[in-house]
Amino acid sequence: MSSTSPTRSITPAIDHVHIELGERSYPILIGHGPSLWQQAQQHFPKGTSALIVTNTTVAPLYAQALRERLQAHYPVIHEVVLPDGEQYKDWQTLNLIFDALLGHGADRKAVLFALGGGVIGDMTGFAAASYMRGVPFVQVPTTLLAQVDSSVGGKTAINHPLGKNMIGAFYQPRLVVCDIDTLQTLPPEQLSAGLAEVIKYGPIYDMAFFAWLEQHVADLRAQQPDALRHAIRRSCEIKAAVVSADETESGLREILNFGHTFGHAIEAGMGYGAWLHGHAVAAGMVQASRLSHLLGHLPDDSFTRRLVQLLQQAGLPVQSPRIDPQRNTARYLELMRVDKKSQGGAIRYVVLKEPGKAITEKVDDATVIPLLDAIGRVTI
Amino acid sequence: MSSTSPTRSITPAIDHVHIELGERSYPILIGHGPSLWQQAQQHFPKGTSALIVTNTTVAPLYAQALRERLQAHYPVIHEVVLPDGEQYKDWQTLNLIFDALLGHGADRKAVLFALGGGVIGDMTGFAAASYMRGVPFVQVPTTLLAQVDSSVGGKTAINHPLGKNMIGAFYQPRLVVCDIDTLQTLPPEQLSAGLAEVIKYGPIYDMAFFAWLEQHVADLRAQQPDALRHAIRRSCEIKAAVVSADETESGLREILNFGHTFGHAIEAGMGYGAWLHGHAVAAGMVQASRLSHLLGHLPDDSFTRRLVQLLQQAGLPVQSPRIDPQRNTARYLELMRVDKKSQGGAIRYVVLKEPGKAITEKVDDATVIPLLDAIGRVTI
Repeated sequence: MSSTSPTRSITPAIDHVHIELGERSYPILIGHGPSLWQQAQQHFPKGTSALIVTNTTVAPLYAQALRERLQAHYPVIHEVVLPDGEQYKDWQTLNLIFDALLGHGADRKAVLFALGGGVIGDMTGFAAASYMRGVPFVQVPTTLLAQVDSSVGGKTAINHPLGKNMIGAFYQPRLVVCDIDTLQTLPPEQLSAGLAEVIKYGPIYDMAFFAWLEQHVADLRAQQPDALRHAIRRSCEIKAAVVSADETESGLREILNFGHTFGHAIEAGMGYGAWLHGHAVAAGMVQASRLSHLLGHLPDDSFTRRLVQLLQQAGLPVQSPRIDPQRNTARYLELMRVDKKSQGGAIRYVVLKEPGKAITEKVDDATVIPLLDAIGRVTI
Repeated sequence: MSSTSPTRSITPAIDHVHIELGERSYPILIGHGPSLWQQAQQHFPKGTSALIVTNTTVAPLYAQALRERLQAHYPVIHEVVLPDGEQYKDWQTLNLIFDALLGHGADRKAVLFALGGGVIGDMTGFAAASYMRGVPFVQVPTTLLAQVDSSVGGKTAINHPLGKNMIGAFYQPRLVVCDIDTLQTLPPEQLSAGLAEVIKYGPIYDMAFFAWLEQHVADLRAQQPDALRHAIRRSCEIKAAVVSADETESGLREILNFGHTFGHAIEAGMGYGAWLHGHAVAAGMVQASRLSHLLGHLPDDSFTRRLVQLLQQAGLPVQSPRIDPQRNTARYLELMRVDKKSQGGAIRYVVLKEPGKAITEKVDDATVIPLLDAIGRVTI
């Protein structure tokens, strides 16, 4: 796919990405200020009531403003404030949304608004998918990670005590509104964590975007609006192109998990919450890039070095941590096998055929072991 | 839609209804004995494991036989036995299915088999829709009601303390196997309750089928296999024709609720469980037929009299009960308004434009009140 000229794309105040999924198509609007919301309102689903679903962190910051923006469109607006955190992404918390809907007598013309990060988006989406077998919902992601990743693709879920995201639905929002003003309250490490997923889209799909990121990474960390808008738009476009071709995750979509097999092992191995997801993915992408070289796809380590430099400039870790003092390599392999649900045999990784093009490939442990053995011993 | 000749349809040993829903199409097979299951096996979804979901009543009767029929097709077969009854159609019981799947390490290639009545079908379907965002499932309905009604249409759900079927999904099975041998253990009143939904398909869609039922109602109650097979097949065909045209219940599908607005009021008014659903629908259809006459669609009460006679021959009640000693009419109206989620104004009923053709129509309370006032005072 060809790159987009940053000059052209930065000109308009509001960016618009169309997610083409037939009758389930929807727009993503990216921008800030009154003009963003004027456009957004034109896409609000019709309904007899609205329910804002948010959490205790986001509610005091943005719930009132959203409520005012909904007022002209829905006769009744309610709000449910969930506890904040991945540990609440469970049935009990989901049920608070159903309790609110039923308590307010909401019918099938209720519209849900997910105001928050990925957890709020996932839970609100699954509630919308299931309430009376499906009501419309709108994503208003307030973290960079949610804006570039979890609000596109229609994956909704809650966790089960025996596994993450085990219970859910493929269910598309009617509209996604990425208001970059909401990023101003995001802690810097969370902004960096979001940048990891932004950077990911370069090696898997679009090296011109990667080059643009190399030039603008400082602007992004400084929250320069035009730069943010372009980065979010291009990320959504790439994710959309991949997801449109594979809505229910049969194959192609796997390339979006570049760096995630190593990353998930880091998250699980360090104990959930110790490493931010985006940080683990950053270190994981470095490993996946090295593996691509070991497999003979990349001729040398020049791309890995570019990747390391950009990740560092984005404030992200590039070294994988030791997750077990005695048997670090074996533990990584165990966790990666669990992540991939491989019963045995070679694990399937997302690797780079070349910079800008990812593929999946089964790789023998013997090829991966040297990378894992080097953890904690090699400096970059 | 034209009727089907009973002579032609009774000839083959196994009936086959194709539910056309594009890539979500699936077959319903109706019959009994080894030949039914030989055909069914050709349609089993491929998978790495199977989970039979059943209940404490059905498990001792049919679980072992189903397990044997699956053995050649799935390397691993597990079973989860749920408590029996509508009161268990909740999240807690649903979670037993997820616990079983995750406890056995089931992946996205697990196949669920719903072995039981409507509650088992609804819960297994919703579990299949939600587990890892969707795994295949097969319906093996063991009640007449489930065979002719709940196993066709893709509606799955659980109850919430504040409302029935409030949380669910539209999700299609890959195959429905109606084994009429399983009806032999069904209590006679349950068989009659299933016949209420069978009879319903006549007035709403196909009066030739109604005439066939008038001739064969005794055979059906005696469980004559060819008669059962034809009744189930024609019921599924009609439901399929209606559902195919309106998969997610936007309008046309409402005609399937003929008799249900009155019927739901009876069920709720008498206390859930006091009247079987099919019994309440039978009495409700009589009211809906009378209402069609009051609205001027039916020229006289001759069709209502035919309907009453057939329902009685099927062992079904035709008189609506008084649900409130003091204010019976007002209570009916209240409950029908709740059922239809009408905030106020006229309630929408399914009525007969003519025998064999149903429509929905808003009807002023003033028109309905004489029918309700007559309850307990008029004998048929």
